[in-house]
Order: sequence, then structure tokens, then C-alpha cells
Amino acid sequence: MKGSVNFTPGPSQLYFTVEDHMRQAFREGIPSLSHRTKTFEGISKHTVGGIRQILGIPDHFHIVFTSSATEIWERIVQNLVEEKSHHFVNGAFSKRFHEIALQLNRKPTKTEVPEGEGFKSADKQQTELIALTQNETSTGVMLPMDFIHSFRETHPDSLITVDAVSALPYPVFDFSKIDSLYFSIQKGFGLPAGLGVWIINDACVTKAERMQAKGISIGSYHSIPSLVSHASKNQTPETPNVLGIYLLGKVVEDMLRRGIDMIRKETEYKAAILYHALQQHELINPFVQDKAFQSKTVIVADTGTHTERIKTFLEAHGLSPGDGYGKAKASQLRFANFPAHSKEQFELLVDTLAKYSG
Amino acid sequence: MKGSVNFTPGPSQLYFTVEDHMRQAFREGIPSLSHRTKTFEGISKHTVGGIRQILGIPDHFHIVFTSSATEIWERIVQNLVEEKSHHFVNGAFSKRFHEIALQLNRKPTKTEVPEGEGFKSADKQQTELIALTQNETSTGVMLPMDFIHSFRETHPDSLITVDAVSALPYPVFDFSKIDSLYFSIQKGFGLPAGLGVWIINDACVTKAERMQAKGISIGSYHSIPSLVSHASKNQTPETPNVLGIYLLGKVVEDMLRRGIDMIRKETEYKAAILYHALQQHELINPFVQDKAFQSKTVIVADTGTHTERIKTFLEAHGLSPGDGYGKAKASQLRFANFPAHSKEQFELLVDTLAKYSG
Repeated sequence: MKGSVNFTPGPSQLYFTVEDHMRQAFREGIPSLSHRTKTFEGISKHTVGGIRQILGIPDHFHIVFTSSATEIWERIVQNLVEEKSHHFVNGAFSKRFHEIALQLNRKPTKTEVPEGEGFKSADKQQTELIALTQNETSTGVMLPMDFIHSFRETHPDSLITVDAVSALPYPVFDFSKIDSLYFSIQKGFGLPAGLGVWIINDACVTKAERMQAKGISIGSYHSIPSLVSHASKNQTPETPNVLGIYLLGKVVEDMLRRGIDMIRKETEYKAAILYHALQQHELINPFVQDKAFQSKTVIVADTGTHTERIKTFLEAHGLSPGDGYGKAKASQLRFANFPAHSKEQFELLVDTLAKYSG
Repeated sequence: MKGSVNFTPGPSQLYFTVEDHMRQAFREGIPSLSHRTKTFEGISKHTVGGIRQILGIPDHFHIVFTSSATEIWERIVQNLVEEKSHHFVNGAFSKRFHEIALQLNRKPTKTEVPEGEGFKSADKQQTELIALTQNETSTGVMLPMDFIHSFRETHPDSLITVDAVSALPYPVFDFSKIDSLYFSIQKGFGLPAGLGVWIINDACVTKAERMQAKGISIGSYHSIPSLVSHASKNQTPETPNVLGIYLLGKVVEDMLRRGIDMIRKETEYKAAILYHALQQHELINPFVQDKAFQSKTVIVADTGTHTERIKTFLEAHGLSPGDGYGKAKASQLRFANFPAHSKEQFELLVDTLAKYSG
């Protein structure tokens, strides 16, 4: 709803400064800027530098742009999987990634648990690539960092890829324990949709080159070698979403100014008060019961038969929750907890929920 | 150059109304609108309807969104070519499409002529798909409509695909003579980059389904069946560039109000006066000599050793030409002639060029 706080987990509430940056972009001629200019290269360098800083990405990781995280799923399979990837599936998005591997004629395997649950232990099965969804946007399950970081030891020969689409910039990764990380900008970064960011190390580049040398097609303009070679010159293979790259750089700069530690602390505070409110409420429960798996950035409420009424009640207070995903639309509401959502908005949300009594 | 008229053939001069529409988009909450809403479906329907009307596209053609025309090259090969496509190559972009077919492990063939030239006759060789570049952005060669429309008769069993990236909405196609047409929005439609539009008929859908039934991978989220099935519900498989789809619909609406016939007539007038000026000039010539192949929408000037000086001279008058493409950067300038470029701007360009005397 227009004018309301948008708690949908992506596209979500815009970061506070986006509209001002958009106005400035028009003043600077960014919407019609040719991507084959020094000006664009400067913008691209600034954005990549900001992402590197805010997420603590080591120099030996490359940062490249795609059009969406959905595209990145396809590029991962094309470039990094000759035959078998192994997917940890616990919701609609992790499941979709597994399906994409099937559609690209690979033979993916999976460890699947019911929606709303996490995983007990890392599978011992060896595979070319481990696909982890750090934050399952459909169900609000966040995998513990220890779990994600455990694969390097148990699967030394596998590439470890992490979907953190609806969690970044909140989580802190140990980049020595993963090979690839990715997100899209319409979630935690609070920007208009239309850009994916893919972070990949040299092991990924080597794997793609080895597949190519074997005569396997790894795609064309958005193959890893093509993306990385253009990125080394602050360029892109195709005409990209120039405006998206510009706005992302500006918002990351704002977030760095505010301080990523502060943003992370506020994320934890906001998550804590909302989970507490859900736990205390007589008619509502957190969907994810096990605290170890409760997402800090996408909080799913089990609202049962009250779903429509709670939604209407919140909207009357200027608070627009996200629907439950897929079949859960009738029985759940989702609340994004992104840097664009202020403490005050979360406090209002919690107070308003407390007032709802059926 | 900021504040100048941008004659680069894409990203190019913004259409007059884009900034106003962007402001309105923020007022309506479009930049953070969820794509899984009725509001988005309404926007998508409006945009597709506008494109259908302005280009005269029959109902049995589907209109779907990708992230760029570069992506469409890849999707065409993935979905429509089992083994052999045949490419008419006369510049950097038609050449790149042929390369993409090679990178996707097909066995494409080509008819190649030197840059700046068109083709004498349609090759008789039978193939699965004919790839035509109606307007070669790198050289300013536009293929005559008769040539494009001749393939249906000579190649009844081939799918005929037409790249009109830097020409639309100017050219008028006979949709009974082609199977697919595509463009990106940062050229003739005068919008920020980050969206491709792909127009496909049922013969393309059938071919993709037949390939899939044979066990050939046709991609995943952006396979033709996936794109078309989502489009039938005014939806997209992934989170798309929502803002781009909204803005395109608004600009097309503006163009329809102004009248596409008027836009086409003005395009012809502007092209005529610029070609005349280049022909008359002592130091400058049109790069494309044969009038039958001179593009109306991307006009390339052979500026030889005067290139840098002419560029500086024009920029001093608030006119920013596009560089020559690739190696031609040192000896050519390119002038986009899109609906965003007014008659007055072209008259100023012509007058200013006439004043340049070395």
C-alpha cells in the first residue's frame, strides 16, 4: 500500500535516500550515460568498492553484475556444475535452484527438510558444488553460520555457493569458507529491482575455464570468464542497468556512513522485539519454532485464520505486511527486517500487533 | 556531456517525459512495488498493450521481457536452434550474435560483407533460423524491408528473427514475414538501460517445446515456454526491472499520443537533412555510401582526421555525438536519430556541422 511502510521481503521498502539519489542521477545524466565511458567505469568501481567494504570481501573475490539472483542460479549451474550439484532445500527458493539445475540437464541431488525447518548436519556425500540458501525468503529460515562454514572441511573438493538474497548486508561470512555469495538489490539494500550481484573467487573462475576447455558450453556474455574479464576493467559485457549500479553505490556509501555494525545491531534489536511480540501474542506465533533457525531479516508469522484481519488491521495503521509465500498466503504474514526499516517502524509494528485481539 | 544533446546511439538521449514519469513512479510506490501484485500485472498489461499498438503487432505474437537484447541473442540460440542458425553479418553486433551461437556449441553459418555494406541477395542455403540485424548500430547500415521480408518465401522452413535494437519504433514490419523481433529500451524508446523486449510468435514456442521434448536444455526461468506462460498472466518468471517496465509503458503512451506516423515522418526528415549535410560537407562524408542501406536511425559520419576536432566543436555547441564503434572511434562519429531527438536539435546539428571548416 502506497504511503505505508512496506514490509514485503522484496521488492521492499526503499532505503531512505533512494529518491534523492535518483534526482541527483537525473541531474548528472546517469539515466542516459553510455556504459562505454570513463564516467561509467568510475561509477562501477565506486559501487564494487563499496560492496567489498561493507561485506568485508577479500581482494581475491570478484564482484560482477547480473540482472537478478534468478539469473545467478542459472549462471552457477552453467559455469560451475558439470554433472552434480547438491542442494539443501527447505523452501520455495532453494527448491527452485535445484529445479534450474535439472532444467539445465544436470543431475542435482538434494537434502530436503519440511518448510520452516533447518538442517541437522551436513551431508557427507561428495559433489561438485554445495548450494546453500542462507536465508529462505519463503519461510523465514536462516541457516546458522557454523553450518554454512562447516562444508569447507567436510567437502574440501566442492565449491560452496551461498544464496543470501534476502539477508545481506546483515550476515557476516568467513570468505575462506565459501566460494560464491550472491544477492539482489531490491531486498536488504532497499533499491528498485533489476540487478543481481555475484561474488566469486578464483576457484570458480578456474572451474568455469576447465569446463570450457572440455568443450562444455558455459554460456556466452555472462559466462564467468566474460564477466570477470570485463569487471577487471570496471566494465560489463552487455549494456547493464547503469542506473541500478549507480544507485547501489550511493546507498552502500550511505550505509557505510551510518556504520554496518550499527545496522547489524539494529537488525538484531528489531528482530528480537518482533519475535518476542509474536511469541507473547495469544493469536499469533512465529512460524519458525527453533530459535537457531529463525531468520533475523525475514520474520514469518503464523497468523492462521486471522491472517486477512491482521493484515487489514496493520494496513489501517500504515503498516503493510508481506503475504505468506505461495500456499501460505492464507495463513502467514511475512515481515522484512531490512536496513530501510527503522527501529521506530518496528516498535510501531510490535505495538500495533499487541493491540490486535481478533 | 551533461546538459548536451546526447546523440550516442544508446544509451541515448532520454525521451522528453522520462524524468516526470520517474517522479510519478516514486509518488505511486513503483520502485518498491512487489511484482506479485495486481498492480504490477496492470502495469505489465498496459506496457505490453502499448508496444503491441505502436508496432502493430498481431495478437498471435507474444511480448516478453528480458534484461537486455544481448540476453535475447542467447535465448534465441538456446530455444530456437538445435544445430544451425545462419547469420547475416556486416558489423560488430551481427557478428557478436554469430559468436554467441558458437559459444553455445551450435554450428552457425554466416554470410559476411564488409562493414558499411548491405547484402546483395538472400542466401539459398536452408537452415533452422535466419538471424537478421535490421539496423547495425556499429556501422549505420539498415537492411531494406524487402530484403528482410524476402526470407519467408525463400526459407519457408526457417524461423526468421530480426534485431531492430537501434531502429524501433521507426521501422514498419510485416509480421507475417518474420517470427521474432527484439529491441532494448535505451535506444529508440529513450529510457534508462536495463530491459529488453522480445516479440515471438507461436512457431517459436512450438520449436522451443519440440527441442525440450527431445531432451535439449532450453534454459530455465527465461526459456520461451516459461516466459510465455508467465506473460499470459501479465507476469514474469523472476523479479524483473519493474520500474523499467512501468517507464516503457508511459513513454509508449506518450508516443502514441504524439502519433507514431508523425514520429516516423520526423525521423525521415531528420535523417534526410543530416545525410544531405554530410553529403554537402567538404570534410565529412556519410560512411554508408549506398543510399539503399543508409540507416534512418543511426547515421554514421566519416570524419577522418577531423574526428576529434569536430567532436570538440559540436560539444562546444551543446551537441554530443557518439564515438565511432571500436576501431572506427578515431575516424567516425555516430548520430542517433531517435524520437527523443527533436527536429530543432537536428537542425542545430546540421547548421553547426556546416560551420565547421577544419
